[in-house]
Amino acid sequence: MAYSTASHPVVDIHTHMYPPSYIKLLSSRTTVPYIHQPSTAGTDPRLIILASDDDASRPKSARGRPVDSTYSSFDEKRRFMTTHGITCSVISLANPWLDFLDPASALPTAQEINDDLERACAENNTSSAHAGIKLYAFGCLPLSASAKDIVSEIHRLKSLPHVKGVIMGTTGLGNGLDDPALDEIYAALASTSTLVFLHPHYGLPDSAFGGPEVIAKSGHVLPLALGFPLETTIAVSRMYLSGVFDRHPQVEFLLAHSGGTLPFLAGRIESCVAHEREFVANGGYKQGPQRSIWEVLHSNIYLDAVIYGQPGLKAAIEAAGSVDRVMFGTDHPFFPPLENEDEKWLSVESNKGAIDGCYPQDAEAKKKILGGNAVRVLGLEL
Amino acid sequence: MAYSTASHPVVDIHTHMYPPSYIKLLSSRTTVPYIHQPSTAGTDPRLIILASDDDASRPKSARGRPVDSTYSSFDEKRRFMTTHGITCSVISLANPWLDFLDPASALPTAQEINDDLERACAENNTSSAHAGIKLYAFGCLPLSASAKDIVSEIHRLKSLPHVKGVIMGTTGLGNGLDDPALDEIYAALASTSTLVFLHPHYGLPDSAFGGPEVIAKSGHVLPLALGFPLETTIAVSRMYLSGVFDRHPQVEFLLAHSGGTLPFLAGRIESCVAHEREFVANGGYKQGPQRSIWEVLHSNIYLDAVIYGQPGLKAAIEAAGSVDRVMFGTDHPFFPPLENEDEKWLSVESNKGAIDGCYPQDAEAKKKILGGNAVRVLGLEL
Repeated sequence: MAYSTASHPVVDIHTHMYPPSYIKLLSSRTTVPYIHQPSTAGTDPRLIILASDDDASRPKSARGRPVDSTYSSFDEKRRFMTTHGITCSVISLANPWLDFLDPASALPTAQEINDDLERACAENNTSSAHAGIKLYAFGCLPLSASAKDIVSEIHRLKSLPHVKGVIMGTTGLGNGLDDPALDEIYAALASTSTLVFLHPHYGLPDSAFGGPEVIAKSGHVLPLALGFPLETTIAVSRMYLSGVFDRHPQVEFLLAHSGGTLPFLAGRIESCVAHEREFVANGGYKQGPQRSIWEVLHSNIYLDAVIYGQPGLKAAIEAAGSVDRVMFGTDHPFFPPLENEDEKWLSVESNKGAIDGCYPQDAEAKKKILGGNAVRVLGLEL
Repeated sequence: MAYSTASHPVVDIHTHMYPPSYIKLLSSRTTVPYIHQPSTAGTDPRLIILASDDDASRPKSARGRPVDSTYSSFDEKRRFMTTHGITCSVISLANPWLDFLDPASALPTAQEINDDLERACAENNTSSAHAGIKLYAFGCLPLSASAKDIVSEIHRLKSLPHVKGVIMGTTGLGNGLDDPALDEIYAALASTSTLVFLHPHYGLPDSAFGGPEVIAKSGHVLPLALGFPLETTIAVSRMYLSGVFDRHPQVEFLLAHSGGTLPFLAGRIESCVAHEREFVANGGYKQGPQRSIWEVLHSNIYLDAVIYGQPGLKAAIEAAGSVDRVMFGTDHPFFPPLENEDEKWLSVESNKGAIDGCYPQDAEAKKKILGGNAVRVLGLEL
């Protein structure tokens, strides 16, 4: 399969970076999330971002995952892009972003990282050495700071021309995305037309999988394959049920991993809402959601195409209501090949293969998912 | 939309009943699961099957859901079938089946209930009063009894001509479906070609949704719309990762609610397995699954079509590999209309509408999902 980069842009909207300021921040910490710098020369530092990674029975040098240069090097990002025919990446901080910061340091840290990202994108895009490769970014928000500080950073980001939205986790200010205290934030996001790239981090409680012993038997498969998408699904459902999309009809979200499992379960959610007898009883919401979940999917939600298979991608496109609302992504630098990192990555090829499989005869639809939609929605200049 | 019952069978493979012996059993209990018989005349008993239903701050008469005659009356089942043009129902005990029984009573109780189901189906199918309506059943297993007793009931069920498989929850013998102690049970199920209808009951821990206060704000929506399908997805994934389908290549499962979210997430599961570095380390399984999740979906798994929407149903059919592996169901008597129970139920019509929407021009495909597949797979005589 050929993806001509000459004829149309290929935009990766799900691709993470740890800019130098973020590496420094994590390296200064000793509790999750942190980077462990080993004393042995020639050994990669270890990134421990999940509580389940921080297994006290193992040495720190064997916890989490190795952080090699693919996490922080723009040259590595460009090399990966060239290998896979990607002409533009919209980079975002990887989880858990700034969720863990104390309130006082949150705003200056967010500003520093967002300025880092802006500078790196601007340098890349004006350098003749990197012709054919464009970089944009999703910024990060100081969610542990005051609402006033969060809103001020949302507004400031509009002055950074390469920042095209923000990435956010599912906890919001700490109590989930249905927290009424977020209304002020949602209002600012909507009024500034700031797209939110919603991404999981916290997964599900270990007991959902049968406990840590069960999880450990297959490494990270259960938390990564299931915990992540189920977390996203629960978070968006809570937003929907609590009326966020009714109170903020202009707010727009791009959901990681094709919406977790929202496209598949939207019908069941709709049906359960329609059959619920006691929505308003016992301290429940005064009213149920005012628009159908389908309407919200069609007007407030975009989905990435990071789903690694045709059945899922088809459901995502169908649930999104249109091929215009689904966008290619890679999740780089995660899911590298176990060997031969220089070759094309299985994780990327399976996502591209799913797009091909959905539209074997429709080059225009493929171009939309691979890049056209991102250019239009994010206003990228390529 | 018309579903001519004359031209082809319409088989409901997901439809629950509480036969008299099961109502009696639940009514004799005062802890979950139990039926509360109110002292006020004219008031329906209450069915409290989920721990989250048993809210001590409410009177028992307000906990759980009303159990009206639709739960236990075969006349009501037939009336529902006639209203919706259903010509055959494969009835199954509703959750939590017999999971809660003490070991000594499990086998005789399972035998009594299975014999009840067999008798009711036989009586219906030979009665001229019910011409045009056929009943079959999925039996239940005494999973808290010894492996020997469980295996003996699996074998005995083959002598009951109207029992066409068994219904099971996700806990197995108490430790999940990846429990090696189940190997003897899986071997018996495979050797007797007994289809397992896998159904959720336990949902997810409350904390996965943000705690009971968050859940209560939208009634049962989060546990029912998300907890149930996510439970199924986790259970099947654990089976897959632990090699159950490798050790028992003949075992066959019918997954409730179109597989939870397995069709949507299969690609991600496959990708996470392919990228896992430490499957065998730290007490992990000696090897990962030997067949791809797609191959298992195409050879060991059937899906019901209880998904209430076209995007989900399309993904289910696509993931199943063929329209031949997906079967219509209703989840009756759950999700009744909030008013006008005598009319066609929204929950049923949305599932039928999804089938229509997937195959607007393909009557043969529709007939397969609506009944043809169930007749072939279960060996129904209609």
